[in-house]
Amino acid sequence: MSDKQNAFYAQSGGVTAVINASAAGVIETARANGDKIGTVYAGRNGIIGALTEDLVDTSAISDADVSALRHTPSGAFGSCRFKLKSLEDNKREYDRLIEVFKAHNIGYFFYNGGGDSADTCLKVSQLSETMGYPIKAIHVPKTVDNDLPITDNCPGFGSVAKYIAVSTLEASFDVASMAKTSTKVFVLEVMGRHAGWIAAAGGMASTDLDLPILILFPEITFDRKVFMGKVAEKVEKYGYVSVVVSEGVQGDDGKFLADQGLKDAFGHAQLGGVAPVVANMIREDLGLKYHWGVADYLQRAARHIASKSDVEQAYALGEAAVNYALAGDNSVMPTVDRVSDNPYKWEIGKASLDQVANVEKMMPRDYITEDGFGITDACRTYLGPLMEGEDYPPYKNGLPQYVMLDHKMVDKKLEPFEI
Amino acid sequence: MSDKQNAFYAQSGGVTAVINASAAGVIETARANGDKIGTVYAGRNGIIGALTEDLVDTSAISDADVSALRHTPSGAFGSCRFKLKSLEDNKREYDRLIEVFKAHNIGYFFYNGGGDSADTCLKVSQLSETMGYPIKAIHVPKTVDNDLPITDNCPGFGSVAKYIAVSTLEASFDVASMAKTSTKVFVLEVMGRHAGWIAAAGGMASTDLDLPILILFPEITFDRKVFMGKVAEKVEKYGYVSVVVSEGVQGDDGKFLADQGLKDAFGHAQLGGVAPVVANMIREDLGLKYHWGVADYLQRAARHIASKSDVEQAYALGEAAVNYALAGDNSVMPTVDRVSDNPYKWEIGKASLDQVANVEKMMPRDYITEDGFGITDACRTYLGPLMEGEDYPPYKNGLPQYVMLDHKMVDKKLEPFEI
Repeated sequence: MSDKQNAFYAQSGGVTAVINASAAGVIETARANGDKIGTVYAGRNGIIGALTEDLVDTSAISDADVSALRHTPSGAFGSCRFKLKSLEDNKREYDRLIEVFKAHNIGYFFYNGGGDSADTCLKVSQLSETMGYPIKAIHVPKTVDNDLPITDNCPGFGSVAKYIAVSTLEASFDVASMAKTSTKVFVLEVMGRHAGWIAAAGGMASTDLDLPILILFPEITFDRKVFMGKVAEKVEKYGYVSVVVSEGVQGDDGKFLADQGLKDAFGHAQLGGVAPVVANMIREDLGLKYHWGVADYLQRAARHIASKSDVEQAYALGEAAVNYALAGDNSVMPTVDRVSDNPYKWEIGKASLDQVANVEKMMPRDYITEDGFGITDACRTYLGPLMEGEDYPPYKNGLPQYVMLDHKMVDKKLEPFEI
Repeated sequence: MSDKQNAFYAQSGGVTAVINASAAGVIETARANGDKIGTVYAGRNGIIGALTEDLVDTSAISDADVSALRHTPSGAFGSCRFKLKSLEDNKREYDRLIEVFKAHNIGYFFYNGGGDSADTCLKVSQLSETMGYPIKAIHVPKTVDNDLPITDNCPGFGSVAKYIAVSTLEASFDVASMAKTSTKVFVLEVMGRHAGWIAAAGGMASTDLDLPILILFPEITFDRKVFMGKVAEKVEKYGYVSVVVSEGVQGDDGKFLADQGLKDAFGHAQLGGVAPVVANMIREDLGLKYHWGVADYLQRAARHIASKSDVEQAYALGEAAVNYALAGDNSVMPTVDRVSDNPYKWEIGKASLDQVANVEKMMPRDYITEDGFGITDACRTYLGPLMEGEDYPPYKNGLPQYVMLDHKMVDKKLEPFEI
């Protein structure tokens, strides 16, 4: 066993357009510090890969392919939705982690994820104290939900924001063209079950143009009558309107609007989106012709229209994670600290994981206009920089050249483990 | 009245990411031939603008703004869904057209649209014969449906194809990352009520990569059992699958799958998309976790990811329309004639409108694999060039700089006309 310890890196939760840029930041920075740190082993499918000893040997990945991760969306090593239980509830999993770390001489743990993953990373960071296994555990932030505290924003969000703003802009031009004899309302459903950050981005489409856009935030209880009044008012004034609706919008019964008890011809419940529900209400109440779209995965995988500042931050945070670990930090998360809005300047900071895990950053109420259907200037000042700049992937034959890695797996040394 | 005659230009039917590039081609070519042709008057909302004398004076648009139309999606002058009736059924409309054309010294008619619009343009082109009013009427092809005959393809389609291929590629990367513990099937609904051209483009995502993609074409009757077998097979082999479903897919009862009799909690019919229907079937039959998206307007308005060859052809066809008219042509449509596949070479040709109007070009059966769920090499050879190249709009503050024209209207000279 060398005195240089190896690193474990994994991706967790919903993937984004730039999480692989963080992976590139981790791997390239580790390679540049080859005198101090050994091989980066990537967990196949997040923490599950650590438990089942499914480790990808990233030393087998060419420099060119690592570099290509920077412009490749989604999780190159596979992600997972899996939260470690507490030590009391499942000591077996912690014992196993230590067994795997020991077997592969792993002294660094980089976990790339959102709120739940920060909790997992916090638990791993406490292995020194709780189980006597020394480890440097660093959380690399990532989530399109933008709901991690302390950091200015979360990698992945800026690119979704850009995608939704651009799409809302483009769809608004479309419905404006059609409104005279056909569609007058376009409804776009976006992600964000708890916080309206992504929905807010739809409002950025009107940064330079006077476009009629109504936003339905999860933070604002849906009032059908008030909303219909707004729709009618916009259509009266502009001839058309775009509605950006968060999947998490709730009625005053506290239920998601999306759960409207839709049933198919056989009486089976239909798990639907909220866009068709809202569009249908508009038809019923106002008789207006509509179209609706549901962006779903397209929004968070849209590396082709990623925000440059988002890509740069995702990479820088991966890089910082390795540097912090090498400097001896444990149980921290590198953060983006905003220095100025315009021009957008930022630097890398550091937060203690116990202040990050299980804390959700919600939209400030003063980012939403008083009527509840738009964004304020304060919100624009915050969001604008996150969407700044383009960072196009290379293309061949009309398609982005995303890399799909061959996973060279590390030889297993342990008995299988059942999750 | 000058001896130079003016031109009428209008946009019709569903708009596209590049129809304004054709407008730029028409206007700039007319400006370059200012010694032979007068002002281009753009109809506000298609042919309706001609009937109601709502004419935009394009001479008031700066050169910079006309140039910006090349990178601005949707219809800058407004579109319409309005088909002229036959002369026998509504002579009043033809009388009115001639009245407006005379009042504004219009001798050229450029109509930018799809199949229905070609029919309108054909009828206008016959005004010389039928009503004794001399006019040069040229149809400028445009339709994301790609169903006009003779021309290699229809402007607007190549950019949708690129958008759908890129989106399918990106979403496939996403679901592949999530499949271990979460989503295993992603269903993307795309346009194409009659022909599967756009759905076929989803198959292009696997041009360089081995991705599991199943396509549901409107040309192939949906067989639930066979389809579920395919889904299960792909998930077994790859761990996940992407399904690209055309809105026009029909069951063996001849009904659209989208019309599955969905009802809301109040028993009202829910006008739904086909994506949730297919996704729900997969849940019922296979119990797999899914996500679904509906691209809707996003796909045809996505100028940010337009195909360069599409933009160039859209412009060239607008340019050619003016040149043909000035050369004395009437009742024709400029076409794209493919000279070679690889490298893609094309030139501008010409088709007689009576061979275009009301003729639908369907997908050749040999573009669809024998099992009905994929595309063949012949299809790839055809589609590939249409998605070639990128033609990014300029950006400011993270957003594309699309132009929204102030419409300077021509003074009306006639009595109002009720449509």
